[in-house]
Amino acid sequence: TLKRDVADLHQSELGDLLEALMPDQRRALVDLMGADFDFGALTEIDEAIRMEIVDSLPNEQIAQAVQELDSDDAVYILEDLDEEDQEEILAQLPFTERIRLRRSLDYPEETAGRRMQTEFVAVPPFWTIGQTIDYMREDQNLPDNFYQIFVIDPTFKLLGAVDLDRILRTKRAVKIEEVMHETRHAIPATMDQEEAAREFEQYDLLSAAVVDENDRLVGVLTIDDVVDVIQQEAEEDLLRMGGVGDEELSDTILATSRSRTPWLMVNLATAILASLVIGLFDATIEQMVALAVLMPIVASMGGNAATQTMTVTVRALATRDIDIYNAGRIIRRETVVGILNGVIFAVVIGVVAGGWFESFGLGGVIATAMIINMLAAALAGILIPLLLDRLGADPAIASSVFVTTVTDVVGFFAFLGLASLWFGLG
Amino acid sequence: TLKRDVADLHQSELGDLLEALMPDQRRALVDLMGADFDFGALTEIDEAIRMEIVDSLPNEQIAQAVQELDSDDAVYILEDLDEEDQEEILAQLPFTERIRLRRSLDYPEETAGRRMQTEFVAVPPFWTIGQTIDYMREDQNLPDNFYQIFVIDPTFKLLGAVDLDRILRTKRAVKIEEVMHETRHAIPATMDQEEAAREFEQYDLLSAAVVDENDRLVGVLTIDDVVDVIQQEAEEDLLRMGGVGDEELSDTILATSRSRTPWLMVNLATAILASLVIGLFDATIEQMVALAVLMPIVASMGGNAATQTMTVTVRALATRDIDIYNAGRIIRRETVVGILNGVIFAVVIGVVAGGWFESFGLGGVIATAMIINMLAAALAGILIPLLLDRLGADPAIASSVFVTTVTDVVGFFAFLGLASLWFGLG
Ligand SMILES: [Mg+2]
Ligand SMILES: [Mg+2]
Ligand SMILES: [Mg+2]
Ligand SMILES: [Mg+2]
Ligand SMILES: [Mg+2]
Ligand SMILES: [Mg+2]
Ligand SMILES: [Mg+2]
Ligand SMILES: [Mg+2]
Ligand SMILES: [Mg+2]
Ligand SMILES: [Mg+2]
Ligand SMILES: [Mg+2]
Ligand SMILES: [Mg+2]
Ligand SMILES: [Mg+2]
Repeated sequence: TLKRDVADLHQSELGDLLEALMPDQRRALVDLMGADFDFGALTEIDEAIRMEIVDSLPNEQIAQAVQELDSDDAVYILEDLDEEDQEEILAQLPFTERIRLRRSLDYPEETAGRRMQTEFVAVPPFWTIGQTIDYMREDQNLPDNFYQIFVIDPTFKLLGAVDLDRILRTKRAVKIEEVMHETRHAIPATMDQEEAAREFEQYDLLSAAVVDENDRLVGVLTIDDVVDVIQQEAEEDLLRMGGVGDEELSDTILATSRSRTPWLMVNLATAILASLVIGLFDATIEQMVALAVLMPIVASMGGNAATQTMTVTVRALATRDIDIYNAGRIIRRETVVGILNGVIFAVVIGVVAGGWFESFGLGGVIATAMIINMLAAALAGILIPLLLDRLGADPAIASSVFVTTVTDVVGFFAFLGLASLWFGLG
Repeated sequence: TLKRDVADLHQSELGDLLEALMPDQRRALVDLMGADFDFGALTEIDEAIRMEIVDSLPNEQIAQAVQELDSDDAVYILEDLDEEDQEEILAQLPFTERIRLRRSLDYPEETAGRRMQTEFVAVPPFWTIGQTIDYMREDQNLPDNFYQIFVIDPTFKLLGAVDLDRILRTKRAVKIEEVMHETRHAIPATMDQEEAAREFEQYDLLSAAVVDENDRLVGVLTIDDVVDVIQQEAEEDLLRMGGVGDEELSDTILATSRSRTPWLMVNLATAILASLVIGLFDATIEQMVALAVLMPIVASMGGNAATQTMTVTVRALATRDIDIYNAGRIIRRETVVGILNGVIFAVVIGVVAGGWFESFGLGGVIATAMIINMLAAALAGILIPLLLDRLGADPAIASSVFVTTVTDVVGFFAFLGLASLWFGLG
């Protein structure tokens, strides 16, 4: 039957199915599945669809379902609800469950504390491997999956960790403290999820202890959720560079339009600024219409060169590959590359434009303007993201506007200004 | 001492250190460390630097070092060497080691076979948990880390897998076949690494069996390397969207310039194409210079709107969130959003331009051109990446050029053409 087939799906497959259905079919599927509906699927779908489903369900049902989930997945579903629904659901949970979820929800969004799971295995250092294995064989309350066990003192202070393969390779009589390793990569609960993900990446972690400000173990962050963080952060950077906000594929037409207009509005303002620069030279253009024909080339080449440099810079900032030690070297490299490519394309466009309009002067003017704009492009492409980053702004979000404004304004001004001087126009 | 401090570094930290050093210092550090140098660090650094270090070392030393590494890391270092050096190094390895590395190297670049590690734990189905644990306690040849053990028949055909936490939770007398689960996510060795990474993500895998065309277990792919693949592929898409090739931060000025010029050359060609369109209307512009002042606005808004749509589309294609089932719906949504935003900005720019040049006609012309170009932007932004993807091309690499060419050409043509008609110019 359909119910049986759906119950066999992995939660991510059920998530894909929900995304593919029409809104009213989604609710019907949840109802059909009843108690067999895997709420974990809700962590795998677009926020808009998750909200739509969750809002349509009674709070009692959500409270019931949330207890079946790992705490991190429960938090993932609860965090987007409004305060009131959240409280109503939490109130219906057993005491310990409620405390755990509330602790996660108390940490700010996008921190390790928000993403951690509060189910973990922790043992005292004086236990033997044998005792530990027996404990795991008996205890029914273990997390669904775990990759290391933690070693704590009676106050929950984190002493170390032991990987599962180490436990399997060690004789039963050996004490935990003899095989545990110091957890060099314990993650403070308030650490930004992106920084936590970088720790996982750098040290090839599968899971990491999350500790509070007193070094007490409060949860564990696992690689599968870190992979989602990495994907999200990469997506965020790509979309921001493309001038798109927190948009999802399932958004409605109005939501999509609304999320894109602010950036277009900013671009309109900068385009008008560029027009004002052209307007300064209207008399010049009137006397030499070839300038109007050629001027977009200078601006466009500058915009592209700047985007190249900016893209490399934004990515290097995101991966922390750029820092104060090598920033100077990279700024110098970009500057020289800008001049070099400026000269190359100055020669090409100088010959093309000079030939097209049969004017050595015009060829020389556009060539000179090209070098100037390519240099401006290189400087804007590297300095603007670095500056935004230094100021604590996200370089991915605002760099494009500033950078292309620079290359448009410099491009038009250099080309039209030089032409006006050289030909004595305007 | 320095040597002691360096030996204590994690391989990724040693990698960062190597990247920060000057070229001659790098070789000096490798020599200083001698046999203590962790060649794993070479898998953590930019390709250019890796090649520089590896090329400077004698092949005997590399052959020696490579034996200490997991096979995937050894392959990562060997794959970039030229054929001749590769053969010389392989010839100096013990037989089994040589066979294993050659098998990986025989799979195409960027496949699961290239990225897999050939060290794994595999047991027959009739063993008990107790036997398995004892085997792992005795065997000295186990991989450094592993997260599941595989179950195979005598011909190495993959039967299933058991996670380590399951082994720890099960009594010693239980047979492996009773606790093993079918490996639903075995990965063919020829699968593209990006697709393999999507499997890891979707099913929250830690490791996955890699099988040859006869379903025989040939290796294992682990999450730490998959995380690197995810990062690389996200970086690749971001850089390609920004018009940058396989560039690395450590590249020289000449290498950087060379990697960026092809894209700039393509952009120059399309910019000249746009100029030719403007050139069609030179007489019109001569009679009404306001057109030259305003025309970049229409093109720029179209370019930005198209980039927004294209960015969303390219990302959705990379994550396989767009498919034949929802492509139609998304094309319709983008079209309507394009028209809607076209109307919004048509009104704004119509009022601004009409006021600025005190001409209702000019306001109407630019408003109409804006709607046309925003619609063209939406269609180009979604259809061009979809088409490139369908043709088997990477939508990230070429979409930008085509898309902005469309919006430049349509923008200039619509605006200047309408003006010429409306005002009876040209
Ligand atoms: Mg999905
Ligand atoms: Mg963030
Ligand atoms: Mg790593
Ligand atoms: Mg989780
Ligand atoms: Mg998950
Ligand atoms: Mg970010
Ligand atoms: Mg690095
Ligand atoms: Mg490589
Ligand atoms: Mg690829
Ligand atoms: Mg997942
Ligand atoms: Mg590996
Ligand atoms: Mg590695
Ligand atoms: Mg790709």
